[in-house]
Amino acid sequence: MSEGTVLRSANRSPLTAEETVITASSSARMPKTVRELGEFGLIARMNAGRTQAPNVLLGPGDDAAVVAAPAGRFVVTTDMLVQDRHFRLDWSSARDIGRKAIAQNAADVVAMGATPSAFVVSFGCPSDTPVDFVTELADGMWAEAERAGASIAGGDVVRSPLLVISVTAFGDPGEREPILKSGARPGDIAAVAGLLGWSGAGYAVLAAGNSAADSPSFADVVAVHRVPQPPYAAVLDLPQSAVITALTDVSDGLLADMGHIAESSGVAIDLDSAALHDPVLESIAATLGAEALDWVLAGGEDHAFAATFAAPGDVPAGWRPVGRVVAGSGVTVDGIARNGPTGWESFA
Amino acid sequence: MSEGTVLRSANRSPLTAEETVITASSSARMPKTVRELGEFGLIARMNAGRTQAPNVLLGPGDDAAVVAAPAGRFVVTTDMLVQDRHFRLDWSSARDIGRKAIAQNAADVVAMGATPSAFVVSFGCPSDTPVDFVTELADGMWAEAERAGASIAGGDVVRSPLLVISVTAFGDPGEREPILKSGARPGDIAAVAGLLGWSGAGYAVLAAGNSAADSPSFADVVAVHRVPQPPYAAVLDLPQSAVITALTDVSDGLLADMGHIAESSGVAIDLDSAALHDPVLESIAATLGAEALDWVLAGGEDHAFAATFAAPGDVPAGWRPVGRVVAGSGVTVDGIARNGPTGWESFA
Repeated sequence: MSEGTVLRSANRSPLTAEETVITASSSARMPKTVRELGEFGLIARMNAGRTQAPNVLLGPGDDAAVVAAPAGRFVVTTDMLVQDRHFRLDWSSARDIGRKAIAQNAADVVAMGATPSAFVVSFGCPSDTPVDFVTELADGMWAEAERAGASIAGGDVVRSPLLVISVTAFGDPGEREPILKSGARPGDIAAVAGLLGWSGAGYAVLAAGNSAADSPSFADVVAVHRVPQPPYAAVLDLPQSAVITALTDVSDGLLADMGHIAESSGVAIDLDSAALHDPVLESIAATLGAEALDWVLAGGEDHAFAATFAAPGDVPAGWRPVGRVVAGSGVTVDGIARNGPTGWESFA
Repeated sequence: MSEGTVLRSANRSPLTAEETVITASSSARMPKTVRELGEFGLIARMNAGRTQAPNVLLGPGDDAAVVAAPAGRFVVTTDMLVQDRHFRLDWSSARDIGRKAIAQNAADVVAMGATPSAFVVSFGCPSDTPVDFVTELADGMWAEAERAGASIAGGDVVRSPLLVISVTAFGDPGEREPILKSGARPGDIAAVAGLLGWSGAGYAVLAAGNSAADSPSFADVVAVHRVPQPPYAAVLDLPQSAVITALTDVSDGLLADMGHIAESSGVAIDLDSAALHDPVLESIAATLGAEALDWVLAGGEDHAFAATFAAPGDVPAGWRPVGRVVAGSGVTVDGIARNGPTGWESFA
């Protein structure tokens, strides 16, 4: 692509005028850094060999992309990831970081009951960033975008002192109304799809040092921490007959995210600890001197789905009942209040 | 709003677990920094009193926003702005930075012939950022979004060692096909709408020191550098009868952006220097020992519009003919090649 806000550099301020980019043609050897390749070469490299999904009516190359919205409306969500805050280069590969950035945005789209249709990505990096790092990051993003049934319609590449990734994800709600957090009613069943606590356990394993990560089950949770695998199909393949009353992505931890459903719906949710046992996590927790239930309830970055269903018979295959909706407010476990979801994020 | 990827914090990694956010309620005085207010308080503050435009069917508060796309498709563009690279805190107010961030994205949407429908914004800042800075930034974003006929449907707030702003803008193309860069044909008239070179001159004035900025005409170009005012209506109010064959946003400079039209269309464009005179710029250039034409051709960040029209009679009011489309490749001025647009960005 030649230019446009679609995977071109930002409109560069004259502030940057002194920073000459050495183009590939000025060097006999293959460019190894972003500076050597230059922004347009980098953009071309990131987009080489990609095939846009059918929803992308116009991909990179003009002032903007064009994406289909057959329902006459679209779902949109955005997340920014900052180096050393949301990912660590010594813990995750470029490909893993790319996959995770897309997965966590796709999960938010799916958490509205919408099918991912496209992504755009803004990316900032230092000029000495290896070109291979950027192409592997793009490979990871494309792999996860395709797993979600979509593609990357465009973006922006800028220079930044540290790596920053901003993903915006779009979804097609189809003919049905988006599934909000606010529809839970007393008597509903609370259920989850996907792995809870594995990402938090993986973080704990990494924090404990590499030797622990050599154990097979330890490696499993580390892999989930590095690349969450949201169970998109658990939502997108919901049977028409299932009455799902509220839905969200579990990103801050089950307690916090069920708390968001409870708060939005004006209800309370009581979780059943017996439904939250996980022998894999309990084994790892015993080794590390941690509590498995803490990871399950508050580990964060699960990118599982939490929902409420109108009746036990509505909970489909792939979903696990974990509690029930009752009158009141807040979230309890076995009827007992833990740290309340309100303000949970403040000291998590 | 309570949560959701819509103006909530990113799913925070356990990496950040040690960083306790002091909530407003824990302090008797008004919170002065983002850390003191906390992310949810900050989000609430940024969104207080805002009214969403009709295209935003669901605003902040759930996992994602919902935006109308009545034409069954939407235009999307994204740009990332990094502190000290795309803006300077000693040159621009928070409000100016917010307006500019939205304006440059809105200009890309309009450069497709689409009407801005909504924006989402991701924002990273240090924890000691004053709350007032963030609310003034949001005020500027909202002011420009409203000038473009839209609103800010959601976003994301994260902690970052430096300020990073990522804007994604959406547009409704209506029933007409998006106007691409690739439709220019020999014989067409090249024309522009908006100010060329004023932003570049404003940069030069700022770089020359504050005393120069005290002159009235100097102040005018500095104001344009701080807050570009894309002439949205020049595109959105184009008469049905006008045959516009190609259109783009002038962000990299007239030479570069006309070059993008020329390259995409497989034509050459010859600009007429007599049409590019600007007495205001020439006066400032004389004082600073600069060349006004350099600012006009390559100053960058104009956020004017460049287009080609099929016939002289198609150039509407508000547009200024500046050259013509001929067979060949590249962009010339009075028939003479200057620095070619290909690779122009590399040493701009």
